[in-house]
Amino acid sequence: MMAGILDGVRILDFTQMKTGPMGTQLLADLGADVIKVERPGGGEWERGFPAFGRFTAAGASPFFLSLNRNKRSLAIDLRSARARDAIYRLMPTVDVVVQNFRPGVLDRLGYGYEALRALRPDVVYCSSSGYGGRGPYVERPGQDLLAQALSGMVLANGTADRPMPVASTVADGATALMVAIAILGGLVHRLRTGEGQYVEVDLLSTLIALQQEEIAAILNLSPRPEFRRSESGVPAPWLSAPYGIYPTKDERYLAIAMNPLDRLAALLDLPALNAYASPEKAFSHRDEVKRLIEARTREDTQAHWVAHLLAADIWCAPVQSLAEAVDDPQVRHNELIRSLRHPVLGDVGVVATPIRYSATPPTYRLAPPLAGEHSRAVLAEAGLTAAEIEALVAAGVVTEPPVDAAGGGGGGDRPDGSARAPGARAPQSNG
Amino acid sequence: MMAGILDGVRILDFTQMKTGPMGTQLLADLGADVIKVERPGGGEWERGFPAFGRFTAAGASPFFLSLNRNKRSLAIDLRSARARDAIYRLMPTVDVVVQNFRPGVLDRLGYGYEALRALRPDVVYCSSSGYGGRGPYVERPGQDLLAQALSGMVLANGTADRPMPVASTVADGATALMVAIAILGGLVHRLRTGEGQYVEVDLLSTLIALQQEEIAAILNLSPRPEFRRSESGVPAPWLSAPYGIYPTKDERYLAIAMNPLDRLAALLDLPALNAYASPEKAFSHRDEVKRLIEARTREDTQAHWVAHLLAADIWCAPVQSLAEAVDDPQVRHNELIRSLRHPVLGDVGVVATPIRYSATPPTYRLAPPLAGEHSRAVLAEAGLTAAEIEALVAAGVVTEPPVDAAGGGGGGDRPDGSARAPGARAPQSNG
Repeated sequence: MMAGILDGVRILDFTQMKTGPMGTQLLADLGADVIKVERPGGGEWERGFPAFGRFTAAGASPFFLSLNRNKRSLAIDLRSARARDAIYRLMPTVDVVVQNFRPGVLDRLGYGYEALRALRPDVVYCSSSGYGGRGPYVERPGQDLLAQALSGMVLANGTADRPMPVASTVADGATALMVAIAILGGLVHRLRTGEGQYVEVDLLSTLIALQQEEIAAILNLSPRPEFRRSESGVPAPWLSAPYGIYPTKDERYLAIAMNPLDRLAALLDLPALNAYASPEKAFSHRDEVKRLIEARTREDTQAHWVAHLLAADIWCAPVQSLAEAVDDPQVRHNELIRSLRHPVLGDVGVVATPIRYSATPPTYRLAPPLAGEHSRAVLAEAGLTAAEIEALVAAGVVTEPPVDAAGGGGGGDRPDGSARAPGARAPQSNG
Repeated sequence: MMAGILDGVRILDFTQMKTGPMGTQLLADLGADVIKVERPGGGEWERGFPAFGRFTAAGASPFFLSLNRNKRSLAIDLRSARARDAIYRLMPTVDVVVQNFRPGVLDRLGYGYEALRALRPDVVYCSSSGYGGRGPYVERPGQDLLAQALSGMVLANGTADRPMPVASTVADGATALMVAIAILGGLVHRLRTGEGQYVEVDLLSTLIALQQEEIAAILNLSPRPEFRRSESGVPAPWLSAPYGIYPTKDERYLAIAMNPLDRLAALLDLPALNAYASPEKAFSHRDEVKRLIEARTREDTQAHWVAHLLAADIWCAPVQSLAEAVDDPQVRHNELIRSLRHPVLGDVGVVATPIRYSATPPTYRLAPPLAGEHSRAVLAEAGLTAAEIEALVAAGVVTEPPVDAAGGGGGGDRPDGSARAPGARAPQSNG
């Protein structure tokens, strides 16, 4: 069997919601042993987050399932001194710690960088937050939509009369990748020097970096450009036609990216386009250009236009639904959709890590865990005796899943039996 | 001076446009010596890509400036056998190769993995493409908007009657982060085992992974959910109210993320909201909920609502423009906006790498280069004699910037003097 890149690397994972869990899942796919620390009982907050207002038949949140494979779950009450003792005993075996509580919360509980490096001097400790661990927004709630709003992304998106956030949680997703980069970089440094360190990422900074091209336009163009969303639907304030989405006769859509207007003029039999071929005109008259092309694409089907334009190597693609994307032949070819078998939850569909290493491919070993599924195993690895573990379970400091557990979410396994609406228990998290 | 994580690591960078350059720039910020290989003369394609139809006063593309600091430029004609000889002589000093030509192009020119590993057996070789190096789409043009269209992202975004792509190039940006992860993972493996390998990422797979939460809803909810964009502007087909963007009296906007509706009902004095507090109703009646809240937020200013709701720790934020974001106090605090001095281009504004390492912070050493600015220096490091270099320059196989160079883009330094419209020379690139 081929070894994973991070085989033997242990990550103690205090994260919740999306950013942290998605980042550590990627590292778990590369072979790391990720120990997910959750609240006793119902476990992590994301287990109670519905999609389309719903949970799976087994009562699990699809969102939670998507972000937590290849991890082991330790459900433990971090506020308890006995929990702290157990985790401190685990620390000598831990290479990486990662957390995304609001700044300061975990420090106050005794799990900050200074406390944990005392037990493991070369630990790589990564914090992810909404805005950073210091500065004017340190007390504010940090979350994907809020970071999008502050970062300028909402006002750049949407139509002329309605700004729109990005539907998918791109702040969370991109910051998850920053978490992975931060930790891998820390491990490279540790392998080269033997030294650990503290490293921080945050949602707002990541979105600023993701928009570095358009910010460079603000910083380097004089006079500073105006950000006006297009009337006709050119996707971004800084882009020219033909860039955009075009309706077709069969009520589908066609995407056309940057392409020379003179070539499009010939291929679409639209000589009027030639008047806009300069960069300046392609920008200043983008709505006219878009409407001209739109009128033509409505005259035939998506399949026709894709075939016609691809034959001339025009940069275009059919617009597909997410369900079509899941069944797309290239997505299948890339083996991005996987199924994992869980003894209680049944078959769980997940999306693979999209990095294809020739010598050390990502592996998919464990289905997303039930809250506390590995509490005993992890504590035993920390050196706790069976009697010590039993005492923690008896005291409720550590929990295991009930025998008939359904995995959190909409199920009835929580002590108070309540349904958890989005945000019903806002966690002390900051992305 | 503190050492960078990748000090002494040399990256031979054959990438162009955004994905590759943004990925290698991040690694350059971590200390790597990135040698950017460009076409002789005008250099990389992105130098000719305008923003808002414009270039800087010095004739440079703001987009190019944003993605290429901390790199040295070697302008060389890859089709020439003499160029190949020079690059082969450089290879023993190279740790990482990265490229994003269309699949097969670089192999045919003699710079594929098999050819280069023969010269440097432990090289980490990363390819980035639109869809992957094999499979049904291998011949198709690959680019951000096209990957968004195929991935389902376009149809998930926008308003009920108009699907919209994400304005910012998220496929490129997130895949750039995948490039960085792929290479850092490869370096971790090499440090642990001495072995190099080939690794691949692509735009479409990255967007599938970025949407893993919503795909998990498709894979794990039964019956499969319908993807309907909201009438009133709830951002995503799978999200419930109050999630969204709300207009205020002063013609600004307020972002409200997941929050318990009963708390909002009290804080906004909107008891009608209580009827929708269950997860099912918050989803099925999301447009009604959004309109109720919208009517209230229009009655006062953005500043009022942000202060009122943040005081109650409601997850909200003001919606800012990108220009406001650049001047945002937290963005300033995080030192995300930097200026680099270039002897020809003048002061260049760029966005920093948003990862804060305590021991090995990213550094900003070099402004974005002119095409060929470091041609002679790099070739000398490959062991070429002064006479050999002179001969390559005389033959036009290698170029240096003209004495009065303006940095490409809209300037007149290209041999044919033509303006380059977007896509006027579609590169052999695939993301």
